Amino acid sequence: MAQLLNGKLLASQRAAKLKEEVNKLKQQGIKPTLCVINIGNDPGSKIYLKTKKRRAAELGITQKLYQLPAEVDQANVVKLIDQLNADKSINALMIQLPVPHQLNLNEALGRIIPEKDVDCLSPSNVGRLWRGDHFVEPATAHGILALLDHYDLDLHGKNVVIIGRSSIVGKPLAALLLERDATVSILHSKTRNLGEYTKNADILVSAAGQPGLVKAGMVKQGAVVVDVGINRVHGQTVGDVDFADVAQRASYITPVPGGVGPLTVEALMEQVVGLTRRQNGR
Amino acid sequence: MAQLLNGKLLASQRAAKLKEEVNKLKQQGIKPTLCVINIGNDPGSKIYLKTKKRRAAELGITQKLYQLPAEVDQANVVKLIDQLNADKSINALMIQLPVPHQLNLNEALGRIIPEKDVDCLSPSNVGRLWRGDHFVEPATAHGILALLDHYDLDLHGKNVVIIGRSSIVGKPLAALLLERDATVSILHSKTRNLGEYTKNADILVSAAGQPGLVKAGMVKQGAVVVDVGINRVHGQTVGDVDFADVAQRASYITPVPGGVGPLTVEALMEQVVGLTRRQNGR
Repeated sequence: MAQLLNGKLLASQRAAKLKEEVNKLKQQGIKPTLCVINIGNDPGSKIYLKTKKRRAAELGITQKLYQLPAEVDQANVVKLIDQLNADKSINALMIQLPVPHQLNLNEALGRIIPEKDVDCLSPSNVGRLWRGDHFVEPATAHGILALLDHYDLDLHGKNVVIIGRSSIVGKPLAALLLERDATVSILHSKTRNLGEYTKNADILVSAAGQPGLVKAGMVKQGAVVVDVGINRVHGQTVGDVDFADVAQRASYITPVPGGVGPLTVEALMEQVVGLTRRQNGR
Repeated sequence: MAQLLNGKLLASQRAAKLKEEVNKLKQQGIKPTLCVINIGNDPGSKIYLKTKKRRAAELGITQKLYQLPAEVDQANVVKLIDQLNADKSINALMIQLPVPHQLNLNEALGRIIPEKDVDCLSPSNVGRLWRGDHFVEPATAHGILALLDHYDLDLHGKNVVIIGRSSIVGKPLAALLLERDATVSILHSKTRNLGEYTKNADILVSAAGQPGLVKAGMVKQGAVVVDVGINRVHGQTVGDVDFADVAQRASYITPVPGGVGPLTVEALMEQVVGLTRRQNGR
């Protein structure tokens, strides 16, 4: 039976340290502030926003929410971003995803100044990630590495397979893993025979958002399995991995919930504090 | 015996078309101009510079060379870049690699304005490549895709293995291939058992710069093999692939010389013309 990679516990340990940092900044008159733009009424987004708000409050980070209607046009989104870019009281700015289809998301993300781009989705921050001179790190990828490091799981020369090529998880995670000398394969919805790749993986990361995708037969004996999926099935939150079966083969595995999720929120708050420090020369 | 992927022939066909484009621009008073900064006296660079100069001349593209001494300091490199950024007669600007170790290459590359960054090495252009809204495409990766497309070699869902994780070839090629729905694995010097990955590759790209690296036993029967290596061995130019043996197993293979090399230079000139067009609203 695999050992659990307890993301929830690690997140709370890191949160305790981060809270101290936030307190010290506040004693210097600096209030780390995250601003989230939410557009429309995606039900998943509501849950994430609530989690972020609670976590920010616990840490003493100010969170502001700008809610825009689903039918907002691009010009008004850009106008709001420009206004928040210029607002000195805001240290970190992000757009909650997904956004309605009429909007040009890439243009909007590129409008956020790199100094406040906490999600690492603006062109220059994405580029800096791939060039190895990181300005910020995307929260999920950062959280996964923190988790693997916490359990002393070596990446050097390891066969790491990522299922999912999103700009939020799969691609930036590949960048960070390559930098840590892992051999990286990126699989996705058009990949034929996922199992042909996953069965050789020393470390398998699933970020597909598809419950039941990863079955025990696809996993190498003794592999490390990281489940980034957050799916609602019959009122329950489950990952991409058939947990009960895969846990019999893996050496380490993240639970869902309680694995990558809490670390993602924690890592986001760490990035908020990092941006705040930099803006204040601390 | 594999069919040759004749990069030299394709490059000359594309050059004929490009020359017409350059002529039309010149009739409108627009002279596409590439400026190369070369620092020090790397012998490999000398060969590349000569090839570029000749190809540019054939196409009617102006090439300017700024030669800096090996011991130049960062401030003087930055000063030159700023000056060339501001020079309206220059459409495309690049730094010939490698550069001496005392220089901060990332900072210098980031100083080139994206509008003139013909090598796609500035942060925002790298980021745009990974986000799928390309401004320019790195020449080698662009050339390889052009070659595969020319021979109607499908990428969708294919197992593509890249040996090499450089910012110039391996990483940008991975970005372009993912966008084309290939499954992509990135191998490098720290990868254990290269053959475990390469023997399953439908398309194998070697950009390691290591003669004799890819042997027939590492290649799947019927695979497409693309050799990006340009190595000098006993006065001869050879790639990374054991050509004679691998050609017995592959369905398609690039020769070295005459494969990827000529297309890289051609693709660079295409990017020069593309940037020139954009700067002139054409």
